Amino acid sequence: MLLLHSCRCGTSNKAIQMTYSFKNDYSEGAHPRILQKLIETNLTQEAGYGLDHLSLEAKKFLRAQMGRPSAEIYFTSGGTQANLLVISHALRPYESVISAQSGHIMTNEAGAIEACGHKVHSVVSPEGKVSCDSIREVLEAHTNVPHQVKPKLVYLSNSTELGTLYQKSELQELYAFCQEKDLYLFIDGARLGQALRAETNDLELKDIASLCDAFYIGATKNGALLGEAIVLLNPKLQSNFGFTLKQRGALLAKGRVLGAQFYELFKDGLFYELAETANRQAMALKAGFKSLGYDFLTETYTNQLFPILQEHQVAALETEFDFYRWKNVPDSRVAIRLITSWATPDLMVEKFIERLSAL
Amino acid sequence: MLLLHSCRCGTSNKAIQMTYSFKNDYSEGAHPRILQKLIETNLTQEAGYGLDHLSLEAKKFLRAQMGRPSAEIYFTSGGTQANLLVISHALRPYESVISAQSGHIMTNEAGAIEACGHKVHSVVSPEGKVSCDSIREVLEAHTNVPHQVKPKLVYLSNSTELGTLYQKSELQELYAFCQEKDLYLFIDGARLGQALRAETNDLELKDIASLCDAFYIGATKNGALLGEAIVLLNPKLQSNFGFTLKQRGALLAKGRVLGAQFYELFKDGLFYELAETANRQAMALKAGFKSLGYDFLTETYTNQLFPILQEHQVAALETEFDFYRWKNVPDSRVAIRLITSWATPDLMVEKFIERLSAL
Amino acid sequence: MLLLHSCRCGTSNKAIQMTYSFKNDYSEGAHPRILQKLIETNLTQEAGYGLDHLSLEAKKFLRAQMGRPSAEIYFTSGGTQANLLVISHALRPYESVISAQSGHIMTNEAGAIEACGHKVHSVVSPEGKVSCDSIREVLEAHTNVPHQVKPKLVYLSNSTELGTLYQKSELQELYAFCQEKDLYLFIDGARLGQALRAETNDLELKDIASLCDAFYIGATKNGALLGEAIVLLNPKLQSNFGFTLKQRGALLAKGRVLGAQFYELFKDGLFYELAETANRQAMALKAGFKSLGYDFLTETYTNQLFPILQEHQVAALETEFDFYRWKNVPDSRVAIRLITSWATPDLMVEKFIERLSAL
Amino acid sequence: MLLLHSCRCGTSNKAIQMTYSFKNDYSEGAHPRILQKLIETNLTQEAGYGLDHLSLEAKKFLRAQMGRPSAEIYFTSGGTQANLLVISHALRPYESVISAQSGHIMTNEAGAIEACGHKVHSVVSPEGKVSCDSIREVLEAHTNVPHQVKPKLVYLSNSTELGTLYQKSELQELYAFCQEKDLYLFIDGARLGQALRAETNDLELKDIASLCDAFYIGATKNGALLGEAIVLLNPKLQSNFGFTLKQRGALLAKGRVLGAQFYELFKDGLFYELAETANRQAMALKAGFKSLGYDFLTETYTNQLFPILQEHQVAALETEFDFYRWKNVPDSRVAIRLITSWATPDLMVEKFIERLSAL
Repeated sequence: MLLLHSCRCGTSNKAIQMTYSFKNDYSEGAHPRILQKLIETNLTQEAGYGLDHLSLEAKKFLRAQMGRPSAEIYFTSGGTQANLLVISHALRPYESVISAQSGHIMTNEAGAIEACGHKVHSVVSPEGKVSCDSIREVLEAHTNVPHQVKPKLVYLSNSTELGTLYQKSELQELYAFCQEKDLYLFIDGARLGQALRAETNDLELKDIASLCDAFYIGATKNGALLGEAIVLLNPKLQSNFGFTLKQRGALLAKGRVLGAQFYELFKDGLFYELAETANRQAMALKAGFKSLGYDFLTETYTNQLFPILQEHQVAALETEFDFYRWKNVPDSRVAIRLITSWATPDLMVEKFIERLSAL
Repeated sequence: MLLLHSCRCGTSNKAIQMTYSFKNDYSEGAHPRILQKLIETNLTQEAGYGLDHLSLEAKKFLRAQMGRPSAEIYFTSGGTQANLLVISHALRPYESVISAQSGHIMTNEAGAIEACGHKVHSVVSPEGKVSCDSIREVLEAHTNVPHQVKPKLVYLSNSTELGTLYQKSELQELYAFCQEKDLYLFIDGARLGQALRAETNDLELKDIASLCDAFYIGATKNGALLGEAIVLLNPKLQSNFGFTLKQRGALLAKGRVLGAQFYELFKDGLFYELAETANRQAMALKAGFKSLGYDFLTETYTNQLFPILQEHQVAALETEFDFYRWKNVPDSRVAIRLITSWATPDLMVEKFIERLSAL
Repeated sequence: MLLLHSCRCGTSNKAIQMTYSFKNDYSEGAHPRILQKLIETNLTQEAGYGLDHLSLEAKKFLRAQMGRPSAEIYFTSGGTQANLLVISHALRPYESVISAQSGHIMTNEAGAIEACGHKVHSVVSPEGKVSCDSIREVLEAHTNVPHQVKPKLVYLSNSTELGTLYQKSELQELYAFCQEKDLYLFIDGARLGQALRAETNDLELKDIASLCDAFYIGATKNGALLGEAIVLLNPKLQSNFGFTLKQRGALLAKGRVLGAQFYELFKDGLFYELAETANRQAMALKAGFKSLGYDFLTETYTNQLFPILQEHQVAALETEFDFYRWKNVPDSRVAIRLITSWATPDLMVEKFIERLSAL
Repeated sequence: MLLLHSCRCGTSNKAIQMTYSFKNDYSEGAHPRILQKLIETNLTQEAGYGLDHLSLEAKKFLRAQMGRPSAEIYFTSGGTQANLLVISHALRPYESVISAQSGHIMTNEAGAIEACGHKVHSVVSPEGKVSCDSIREVLEAHTNVPHQVKPKLVYLSNSTELGTLYQKSELQELYAFCQEKDLYLFIDGARLGQALRAETNDLELKDIASLCDAFYIGATKNGALLGEAIVLLNPKLQSNFGFTLKQRGALLAKGRVLGAQFYELFKDGLFYELAETANRQAMALKAGFKSLGYDFLTETYTNQLFPILQEHQVAALETEFDFYRWKNVPDSRVAIRLITSWATPDLMVEKFIERLSAL
């Protein structure tokens, strides 16, 4: 463990003298405990393809924690992969997906869903969220059988690509609506940990697992080297998923690499601790902006912030920090995106606020 | 490093008392030096998606070592993924692939190539190898334009799925033939290291890189946690490959995880050392079989062996070792498959031969 | 010919006593001259798959009439088929299409383009038309390589799905823009005849053939039993198209059936005569509506009309005529769609106006 | 009708002086009665997309004649299209098809099935026929879940691509086997009429309809201008087929064109009469060959013959007749393929035998 800690210090010292990045939550490697688990189990022989003991144990933890003993769980290496696996497995060729305009599958997956043959309908989504009304509109515009695709799956992200959250009542309403309309509900949880630990959140993992047909739990953006846990709840989606995993090139020979990470993350709550750290650092930044009177593009309580600054302020901050310019806003202002993570040091948050105050 | 070594010992001790597996070369984690590299670089902030320093450096090593400065290199997480990425990127919808009957894409990838829309022609392949004659036969049987698919890419594995090798002259002849017939030649190198370090091999990495249009270097089966390096040599295959990578869900957010491993493997020859160990252990087992008069399904010099035993001998060995029963052979005999790796301890090789001798 | 004429009379007489349909331009069979050509050539032996003399001759006529001797022409059986053939042939898997929101491929082809693996971007399209500005917006929103698809083809329909037209200057501007941005321009000509014979049109077939990379000429909606002529102008799109045709199930064994029809339609201008009839009948209906003070959803000069009526007026007309209710409009009004064709009898136009006047 | 007959004579006279083609059964247009039906119904307004009265009536005839009131029937324009529609509709992405080595989908459809994402396994097929043993072999070679595709559908043609037939007992055995193994059985009936009217046949349409999950009835090769009737018997295959039809570009706007043809073919047995003519002419040719002592590649009783001749004999016949050279045979001999049809005149059969006798 000494070795791991000394690395951390080295990096932090170095980072102080460089541009520090708030661009995303995957700029660092893995939480030290995760690396330690990989080391500990490294030379034990294990079965391949996810049949190792670590994967099996991790799935047990997850099933127990979500209260769904019959859930099927598969570990995979990234979010785009998880999305295309679930969606292509769930749909017939003529069935389509409904997504928020800002949904990751809609805008940032290089047409991965369409490459599997499925149309993605975009719905207007204030704050990045899908509503029953927006789904209904798509359904009503697609009744000309068989000339139009058949909407069959609703895709949403929690937290969303804009950092916002679904409340329990919203998810309940959405899932009831989907069930009534014979639509699958699939939740992209690339940042599910951060959602579940936001101060305004009222959902638990158990709720998520009872309010959709499938979801995934993102670890890449919450402390793992790589890894997402796909959870299939609806029995219709469970059969033969292994074939889909293999056929799309997503079945790792050394499944233990994913298993060990989820084991460590879910054995005693590390996953949630890391999300809390990420959120806490974001809220500290947010408080800094608020105290200085800045506006935000959306009000968020997770690890993504979209403050609005003057162009010259953005330029000044860019000399010391990396982040995305998200969107131009009236009056020559710019909304930027800041992302914190489990690895964001207090020092950097403080330094950022200090520079901001000095502008 | 102490920690890593102590793990190894622990595992080995434990393994002695259990069934030891010769089923494959991905039963263990990674070589300790690879883990160490991940630890050392763990908390440095790096750009995502393969733009990290480790990936960039590793690619430099590789380009230099293969003598192809213009090669495009992409790291990906597994062999099926590498195959489907290259093939789907190279072909138009009506173009097809020629593969040995025993080729991995033909038999063991759950239809991954067909799922991307392409037919795979199987050619009879004694010893798992593709020949010019076998390719010519497919071409001659597909001249009825436009009623038949258009063969456009030849896929071969080195070492093959049967552990055999291509000689330099064979590869030269194949590539010349492919160029004459306007076919791409793509080499699956899931076990390329073991091929290049076999005693009967006369190829170097530089030769591979000059005798095909694309190939990949497998690390998952040679000491990495996961990782294959796709090398695109033909300029026609180079443009826009990043889109294919992303669209198929193969672009890791933390590309550093792959970069660090290839960095360590190719910085000073670790990749080849590990392959040598794997081969040496296989050759030790082979010598054991030979000295006892056993036959083999194919004569191999890499880390895969296919000895032929009596059924009762197989059953006896199975009480202490794990391996695949590969194929029934006349006279109630069984060909089994034994695979060694960088992690196979001398102790297990010795124990296996001891048990075999005692049969 | 007597036989054919007597049929027509029979039908018309019968139709008078029934609900007459203005729902579309494919309610009848083929123009008698087309049937006559099929009869005349019926028992001559011809080569299959489009290599018959009729197809070859018809292609000669077309190439000459469009002034493009190097154009490649393929006859196929329907519009959705023509669209998916051209688009899937033109694009790499990660490339996408830009279409008007009201484009046929966007809304009414059951996801045919996505089923071939390609995303279709929808752009806001007043009057059903694509503009350079709307294309530019898509391009500017898709610069995050390789995370987003690569827009590569612009699809537009002339006449559009709303009956409107592109002027020559608009098409010139669009094609110049596409060439500058390395985008293909593909024109859906399901109702190209009607476009080229509209009174406000300033384009000829020659212009179309010089202002895009590919287009198709629709005959199904202009007097044929079935048939669309795909015209490939850009050499990059020409090679190997036969494979695409065959692979997608679009290559008719008796290609003569399509060849004979295009032969007859283009030998001496029948195609344009039929379009003129369709337009003339629409303009007669339009004049009827105008004289009574009705508004239209869009101002059209082709064979589609979108007049706006009161609900009770629509209901009254529905007792004697078939047509689509297109869209609800403020003040409880309804826009309906009326379509005329080469087969619309004067009697029905007169009767419709008479009933309308009586409302 | 006079007109139609006069055409026929003209053609026949002309053909006498030219090379006459025995290359296939789609060299002519349609049987005159079919054209007559198109003429008679030409100007009646009908609903589009297969909802016309002719299609509905024709489906009634077919359901009654096959004794399967719940069968779903769809008319489409060609055999490759019918095959890809049924197979892509039936299968999940990871499911595959088993076909004879000589199956049309395996060799002559430009990879249409693979383009829909599905692997086609080829089984050795003496006489072009699939056997339970050959299917079992594929199943036994594909048990490594999830690394291999999942065979799910057996495809066979009756008559086969080699002109041979399935006996009732064979089909019963195959279907029972498929049901036991949870495989769909799909019959390609491009030449089903000729099969059902062969002298050695013991199957009726009713038998076909009770011994598979889906089949199609080919009309293109039996007197129609174009048209195949897809019959879906297994309820699992019936739902949502319309979407598949539309999405693949196979739904004709003027479905009446197909409906009218099937109406005429099945109203009073014309379909079978035409098949009988085709077979009778083939059997006359066969008797000619037999009486002269020629061998055949396969013994056939349908409209395809594969006689074996000396090279110089083939060359001599080629000066007056068109046909395919099918395969080289030992002793410098050549198997040729001769195909007859509903339109083959007695005169040509006689002339061919006369020339053959003179060799």
